[in-house]
Amino acid sequence: MQLARVRGTVVCTQKLPSLRGSKLLVLEMLDETGQPLPQYEVAADLVGAGRDEWVLVSRGSAARVEPGQENNPIDAMVIGIIDTVTIGNQQIYNP
Amino acid sequence: MQLARVRGTVVCTQKLPSLRGSKLLVLEMLDETGQPLPQYEVAADLVGAGRDEWVLVSRGSAARVEPGQENNPIDAMVIGIIDTVTIGNQQIYNP
Amino acid sequence: MQLARVRGTVVCTQKLPSLRGSKLLVLEMLDETGQPLPQYEVAADLVGAGRDEWVLVSRGSAARVEPGQENNPIDAMVIGIIDTVTIGNQQIYNP
Amino acid sequence: MQLARVRGTVVCTQKLPSLRGSKLLVLEMLDETGQPLPQYEVAADLVGAGRDEWVLVSRGSAARVEPGQENNPIDAMVIGIIDTVTIGNQQIYNP
Amino acid sequence: MQLARVRGTVVCTQKLPSLRGSKLLVLEMLDETGQPLPQYEVAADLVGAGRDEWVLVSRGSAARVEPGQENNPIDAMVIGIIDTVTIGNQQIYNP
Repeated sequence: MQLARVRGTVVCTQKLPSLRGSKLLVLEMLDETGQPLPQYEVAADLVGAGRDEWVLVSRGSAARVEPGQENNPIDAMVIGIIDTVTIGNQQIYNP
Repeated sequence: MQLARVRGTVVCTQKLPSLRGSKLLVLEMLDETGQPLPQYEVAADLVGAGRDEWVLVSRGSAARVEPGQENNPIDAMVIGIIDTVTIGNQQIYNP
Repeated sequence: MQLARVRGTVVCTQKLPSLRGSKLLVLEMLDETGQPLPQYEVAADLVGAGRDEWVLVSRGSAARVEPGQENNPIDAMVIGIIDTVTIGNQQIYNP
Repeated sequence: MQLARVRGTVVCTQKLPSLRGSKLLVLEMLDETGQPLPQYEVAADLVGAGRDEWVLVSRGSAARVEPGQENNPIDAMVIGIIDTVTIGNQQIYNP
Repeated sequence: MQLARVRGTVVCTQKLPSLRGSKLLVLEMLDETGQPLPQYEVAADLVGAGRDEWVLVSRGSAARVEPGQENNPIDAMVIGIIDTVTIGNQQIYNP
């Protein structure tokens, strides 16, 4: 999984019938010290992450493991809102 | 998922029996501000995306989740035509 | 999927029992304008692509979707020989 | 699989119901000589790896193969704690 | 698939119960002309590849297709020992 920060949203009305109405977030990928990387991901969110929160994103078939998502054609999912990241003895994130 | 813009089409007549007759689009990948990236993807399209439209593309086994696509040997699918992308307070795309 | 050009072949005699006797091609990956990229893929070919032909290659579990390939331990498959690639109004490939 | 060193932990309390309570480690990826790479992975750990230990990490659907993990929405798993890495005649790691 | 050369081995004694006792090789990835790339992969080997031999490596769920490997949490497998690689009219490898 990767660390990411919520930056925005994407809306599609014309879409595959299988694409569920879940919220689609634009995530800025972060390195392990919390610095932004030149990468992003659009991921489904069922956890209710808010703007600028740090989240954990899982990619590939892992995005469809949650019950009810098996037939959602997504390849990235927010699996949790991050409380703390600790590297060595140091908390690098604790909002 | 990633943001992309429709640039063109690919046609194959000699192909695997399992490859369905779905339209194959050449997509230019975009960053989260809408700038083109030096990457592309050829993706199947069932949504009817037109030239220069922004779409959301899903990759990997997600491309075969839509009913009827389970046996289509594709690894990328257009899952929606984008209406709006909002980053922070700003709509960066609203055609 | 990605565009690629057939450059050569790979032969293995000592191999996993599950690896089928399908032809294994060395593919040079191409960008969307047909320029070679510094990447290659070894892919199975059931379509009969010849040297220097442009093909469409699908990667990941998509390589094992074609009936008879479910138990072939491959991660890349030629899914079609390309007839034309059109970008905007221009045919960039039409052999 | 890739070699990695345990650097820290991530804690999420608000999360997908399917995300199990397994420990989530921040791993620094290593090259094959043990030098750190500018990449990291957050992976689930059931083996009990400690700080600074070298581990083997498996990514993608392999993360959900262990019995009890089939419905855990993770895309990376520590599959072993490394005892030795030997390159040619030389042991490059033997803690 | 990618071409690779066998460079060494990895040993783990503390590991997931599902990780089989198969040999784990450190592979140096090669480009299509046989030059080493700055990438490596740790892959399971059931074929018996020896040091410095060239092998074909398959990644992702393809690593678990071989009967008996379905529940092995690996993401890379040696699927064959390479006899010859031919690019155009030239054999670039024929040990």
